Amino acid sequence: MSLARFLPILEWGRSYNAATFTSDLNAAVIVTIMLIPQSLAYAMLAGLPPEIGLYASILPLVAYALFGTSRTLAVGPVAVVSLMTLTAAGRVAEPGTQAFIEAAIALATLSGGILLLMGLLRLGFIANLLSHPVISGFITASGLLIAIGQLKSILGVSASGETLLLLALSLVQHLPDVHLPTLAVGLPALAFLFWVRKGLKPLLMQLGLPNRPAELIARAGPIMAVAASTAAVVAFDLDAAGVRVVGAVPQSLPPLGLPGFDAEQWQSLLIPALLISTIGFVESVSVAQTLAAKRRQRIQPDQELIGLGAANLASAASGAYPVTGGFARSVVNFDAGAETPAAGAFTAVGISLAALFLTPFLARLPVATLAATIIVAVLTLVDLKTPVRVWRYSRADFSAMAATILLTLTVSVEAGVTAGVVLSLALFLWRASRPHVAVVGQVPGTEHFRNILRHQVITYPNILTLRIDDSLTYLNMRWVEEFLIEELAEHPELEHVVLMCSAVNAIDASALESLEAINQRLVDGGIQLHLSEVKGPVMDRLQDTHFLQALSGRVFLSQHQAVEALRAG
Amino acid sequence: MSLARFLPILEWGRSYNAATFTSDLNAAVIVTIMLIPQSLAYAMLAGLPPEIGLYASILPLVAYALFGTSRTLAVGPVAVVSLMTLTAAGRVAEPGTQAFIEAAIALATLSGGILLLMGLLRLGFIANLLSHPVISGFITASGLLIAIGQLKSILGVSASGETLLLLALSLVQHLPDVHLPTLAVGLPALAFLFWVRKGLKPLLMQLGLPNRPAELIARAGPIMAVAASTAAVVAFDLDAAGVRVVGAVPQSLPPLGLPGFDAEQWQSLLIPALLISTIGFVESVSVAQTLAAKRRQRIQPDQELIGLGAANLASAASGAYPVTGGFARSVVNFDAGAETPAAGAFTAVGISLAALFLTPFLARLPVATLAATIIVAVLTLVDLKTPVRVWRYSRADFSAMAATILLTLTVSVEAGVTAGVVLSLALFLWRASRPHVAVVGQVPGTEHFRNILRHQVITYPNILTLRIDDSLTYLNMRWVEEFLIEELAEHPELEHVVLMCSAVNAIDASALESLEAINQRLVDGGIQLHLSEVKGPVMDRLQDTHFLQALSGRVFLSQHQAVEALRAG
Repeated sequence: MSLARFLPILEWGRSYNAATFTSDLNAAVIVTIMLIPQSLAYAMLAGLPPEIGLYASILPLVAYALFGTSRTLAVGPVAVVSLMTLTAAGRVAEPGTQAFIEAAIALATLSGGILLLMGLLRLGFIANLLSHPVISGFITASGLLIAIGQLKSILGVSASGETLLLLALSLVQHLPDVHLPTLAVGLPALAFLFWVRKGLKPLLMQLGLPNRPAELIARAGPIMAVAASTAAVVAFDLDAAGVRVVGAVPQSLPPLGLPGFDAEQWQSLLIPALLISTIGFVESVSVAQTLAAKRRQRIQPDQELIGLGAANLASAASGAYPVTGGFARSVVNFDAGAETPAAGAFTAVGISLAALFLTPFLARLPVATLAATIIVAVLTLVDLKTPVRVWRYSRADFSAMAATILLTLTVSVEAGVTAGVVLSLALFLWRASRPHVAVVGQVPGTEHFRNILRHQVITYPNILTLRIDDSLTYLNMRWVEEFLIEELAEHPELEHVVLMCSAVNAIDASALESLEAINQRLVDGGIQLHLSEVKGPVMDRLQDTHFLQALSGRVFLSQHQAVEALRAG
Repeated sequence: MSLARFLPILEWGRSYNAATFTSDLNAAVIVTIMLIPQSLAYAMLAGLPPEIGLYASILPLVAYALFGTSRTLAVGPVAVVSLMTLTAAGRVAEPGTQAFIEAAIALATLSGGILLLMGLLRLGFIANLLSHPVISGFITASGLLIAIGQLKSILGVSASGETLLLLALSLVQHLPDVHLPTLAVGLPALAFLFWVRKGLKPLLMQLGLPNRPAELIARAGPIMAVAASTAAVVAFDLDAAGVRVVGAVPQSLPPLGLPGFDAEQWQSLLIPALLISTIGFVESVSVAQTLAAKRRQRIQPDQELIGLGAANLASAASGAYPVTGGFARSVVNFDAGAETPAAGAFTAVGISLAALFLTPFLARLPVATLAATIIVAVLTLVDLKTPVRVWRYSRADFSAMAATILLTLTVSVEAGVTAGVVLSLALFLWRASRPHVAVVGQVPGTEHFRNILRHQVITYPNILTLRIDDSLTYLNMRWVEEFLIEELAEHPELEHVVLMCSAVNAIDASALESLEAINQRLVDGGIQLHLSEVKGPVMDRLQDTHFLQALSGRVFLSQHQAVEALRAG
């Protein structure tokens, strides 16, 4: 039982049969066709040689198949994490160098370690710190940055810059150098891929093809673009004309090995790795949860941490870079009928075959085609509707989102995420420090008590009842104290203060001490403090405390009993 | 009105009369007598020349009298802040040097600026981040550190060390060097001061003295010890025998001037200044609040920030170091009958007179006497009962407290406070991410709905009702989702899910998006989502949202209506 918790394969593996095998294999074929060009493109986006993208799509998939809990999540290199890898590794080494590759491997090792540790310590809740608006803002901004960054490969110019402004300026500066043969490859590829996304499948179905093959052919769009543009390079010797191509790709499986350990490098990559793993985890879990819910299945977030941790360590051992669950490919996997994580393992076999036998054909693949693949993929990440909706619903949440977007575009991806997290947290704590407190009175003829500001209720001049609509914690107790002090100043005839605790789920040690201080102050002022409607678990913990011994008044089961007992004075 | 908010003196000044004047003057005399030796001692504790303690007790008191809202708070140098100043300034300069004094002034400038800014931005709630257990643990640990650190001056040896272990080791190493003449002054002073604290006032009253003069004489204990030990030095030429004395003290008022600006120094002192101002503010406000409540008065925390900020800037302008409201002297001020902040201004006059006319007598005051004053004062800060109480009440809160105490004693004061704040916050967020969610059913024969685990209630196989006892936020929504998914897996016949929102005070943008996703997932699984008992303000904000348009089910006013409408299926 316990072993099955950590090895979900023991669960689904038992009922594996020929039918499941067929479904999984079917899905794996489609995902493989989609993943080959994506793996190459995202590796390029991360500043890494293309084969590393393939390596990141083999063992990590197997590791996730063993340890992950989602039946349909497709793991591998993804756009946002590739950008974050480029930024982080770029801080310690020059892209294109061996040191850069080692930094990317170190990021995978660290991310894997962090995820695994969080999983074993059951710290999945840390990912909650990334709110939806912050994640959404971050992904939109990253998508924009990535798309604009790839334009240079379509235009055949060498532009660079880490921020939107620098990138755009650099592109404009290099506009006169546009390389027409490259543009002649890149622009049609881009147009074709945009069209394939929306128009190919309906067209094929109109032509009478059933849904399944139409889907398969549409998903093969990127690989068709790869084949066609490579053929064009070969036919017209475009690489000799200056069109950049991928170049020789080693024809082999990933070179296995233990990732190196460099204390200084690890230290400087720890924070980026933490951000990469958290962003990757949040994205992956939300995809996995959405897909699982559609089939009334469940995923275990803490075990997902272990699954993704294992996948990243496997990536590091393959000499590759951080991976996570990808949105588009998981949906494709799901739609194609994948039933178990074995589909992922079969995809790994497909990519292995590609690494062994397809690589010779990649040498003359134009980089512009890969850039087009990236642009088309990431523009689907750009979501401009959500900011508008968030703005309408909550200015506070919008401010965190806007800070994330602006800082991601203008400073760095790390600054963007960090600002979003810190701002969300500060807003949360600010709200948490201002609990809702209401003065309540009795609704005539009933035993109900309601806010005096909203209802016609009966109150007594010698009794003040406060209903606190929140747990009492060190963050909000000062606010409650101040509220009470303000009320005291306005009610000189008071003899009794009743705290109605119907919504108090817990009282922490700080709040308990504040309650003691309040009790003492009220005693000094000749006023008794009472509690009413204290929940069972809260009362159990109060039982042996000094506060309950010192309490000048009583603890009433109901607010009605309190008022009945006290109104006589 | 608006001006009076920022200048509370406009409020209490209007009703000032001869009677208030007499009371204030009376209190000021007692506080002055108490403050003179304390000011000298705490300056020494902070590694500063003794006159700086006096300077910190003049203008800051006037500034607080103008801007502060507490009628009885007595501001000036305090033990814990002195220790923090020693530690922080010691990081950038050697105690005893001019650079060290400048660092202490910079700390006052920065603390003043931070407090003022927090006050103007109404950020007083940031101080909430310091929970009671953390503050209490920090003060206890600081008190122990200070007391042990002062032992060297009683023993007449030169020991040093920033942590308890290093201090104790250093003391033991230097034990053979104990300077007997110093011990002959220090030990009696220590014994006398301990006795004065508890024994003198009852003795005087037994001898027939009325309460007021007995109190005054008892409060004069430290100044008597100062006078007697100085007399002993003069009589027996003890300083020639190697007993350390204070030495020449300039006979003047504080040298006024604008504090310097050194960007690099400010940057390295910013975090310590933030900690000093927060700790100082929390301590000061809790004293002020306790005393105000005894007379049914109020203080305004945001204006207190401004008052303490002004006091610290005044201290910086006087060439002195960070100040805050002191616990013991405020209680004395209160008990002695101070009625308005003018008492503080009168105390400032008293200290000015001391600075002008008493300083010549301080030259031969033994340092051991000041050390004895400090030890007696700080040992009252050491509270070993609270850790036991917190341990009994909450292991989580105790862990934050223990971390604060241990790190303060073994690493540094900054590490202690920081660890306490971070751990408290992490525990709070962990709890906040696990809201209480209950499946509820109908209490037979009523319209009440209660937790099915605790009550005998009626449920229907096609309806699942969850009551969420918390606001829906980005931190806890994942927990709610997981709870729901788990319940769904156990109830295959479900047709309706009702979220009972009677305790939901707010829904943030993240949670709203999660609700939308939940709604969509339930639709995919053929289940309708409904809400019930949504509070007015929450409903107002939901009104125009996409979520409400997409909601597959209805919003019911009461849970009872929901069940009546849905149970038929």
